[in-house]
Amino acid sequence: MARHEKISISVIRRLPRYYRFLGDLSRNGVLRISSKELSARMGLTASQIRQDLNCFGGFGQQGYGYNVDALHAEIGSILGISKIFPAIIVGAGNIGRAIAMNIGFENMGFKLTGIFDSSPDVIGMEIRGISVIDVSQLETFCKAHKPKIAVITVPQQAAPDIVDRLIKLGIESFWNFSHFDIAFNYPGIVVENVHLGDSLMTLCYMTNNLSALAAHQPQKTEK
Amino acid sequence: MARHEKISISVIRRLPRYYRFLGDLSRNGVLRISSKELSARMGLTASQIRQDLNCFGGFGQQGYGYNVDALHAEIGSILGISKIFPAIIVGAGNIGRAIAMNIGFENMGFKLTGIFDSSPDVIGMEIRGISVIDVSQLETFCKAHKPKIAVITVPQQAAPDIVDRLIKLGIESFWNFSHFDIAFNYPGIVVENVHLGDSLMTLCYMTNNLSALAAHQPQKTEK
Repeated sequence: MARHEKISISVIRRLPRYYRFLGDLSRNGVLRISSKELSARMGLTASQIRQDLNCFGGFGQQGYGYNVDALHAEIGSILGISKIFPAIIVGAGNIGRAIAMNIGFENMGFKLTGIFDSSPDVIGMEIRGISVIDVSQLETFCKAHKPKIAVITVPQQAAPDIVDRLIKLGIESFWNFSHFDIAFNYPGIVVENVHLGDSLMTLCYMTNNLSALAAHQPQKTEK
Repeated sequence: MARHEKISISVIRRLPRYYRFLGDLSRNGVLRISSKELSARMGLTASQIRQDLNCFGGFGQQGYGYNVDALHAEIGSILGISKIFPAIIVGAGNIGRAIAMNIGFENMGFKLTGIFDSSPDVIGMEIRGISVIDVSQLETFCKAHKPKIAVITVPQQAAPDIVDRLIKLGIESFWNFSHFDIAFNYPGIVVENVHLGDSLMTLCYMTNNLSALAAHQPQKTEK
């Protein structure tokens, strides 16, 4: 892992896209791809792609392009998705349930082991074979099952208390759908935020500025 | 709008965070904030904040900081969220329903006017006061109601056909939750992608590299 330590977060954020796209190519029987083709598909420049992949030691051969399966496997290994971290979801409302049902945790380095809520309406409900547990049982469950990450899908006002309890229970990694700013309040904790509202407001800006943005198409969908 | 035309997408992506944070401050009765305080809260440098806000003409007074309400209103106006674009959701599965129920479209520049699905199990279902319509009615509905943006929450294999129909109907702006690459296939169309799986894989990388990342806390939660 040592050679990956200095990689910038913007390179890291592109890796899942490479991984996903190379997986599609592989399923379609494509064996090799040039950085030029990869760049056209990913909306990046070919030199950006070569730079990104060089961070990890480079996998291309001049004039031959990249071996799709080898690069796919290597990026998967860099992302670390073959190790499986136990994960829990706290908040079994609409968003929490949709995530539990639609996200392939197992293919992305995690296994969903528990779902929690405080509402009697959902406690006991089965979601993807997992029965929703009363959030008052969080401490007991975490001490027994030692989840590594928590998905936070509780309402804004409940988030600070829940996150505080989880951090005391040793959780160091959060997939945060709430607007509670975990990273600011707990430095040293790993947080990946999903702010759907921010994304929608960005779309609003882009929709308002369609003509001005048309010239910048490749950057537009970049995360 | 002319003065905003050359703003980079990374500045634009930070605007909703400023907007959200300034809204919280305003609701808490805070009248002024320095770029130093703003920067600490947002995990950006003070000089980055000043640079960002200067793109829009700057709103700070040396030594006085920013007027919270004025800056909040101006960023809202730059984002254009006071104009209301009609929006539809195509795909009323778990994710589509969760978005319909949880996202405050009205506060972010949009009004949800239609929800579509192909499954008899959900057609007719009421979601937030809107009855799910058979996707075969898409053409009739769009010609009558002229939605401006579409939220794509259909399964991967259904996305190419749906997107093609919508573009023929004049939709130029997509909030895309599918993995179908709209921007690559339709240059000139505005697309904001939400790839939850990519976000989860990024978290996997960060969880695997906790100690290496702890030194880079401010960048970590940046989109």
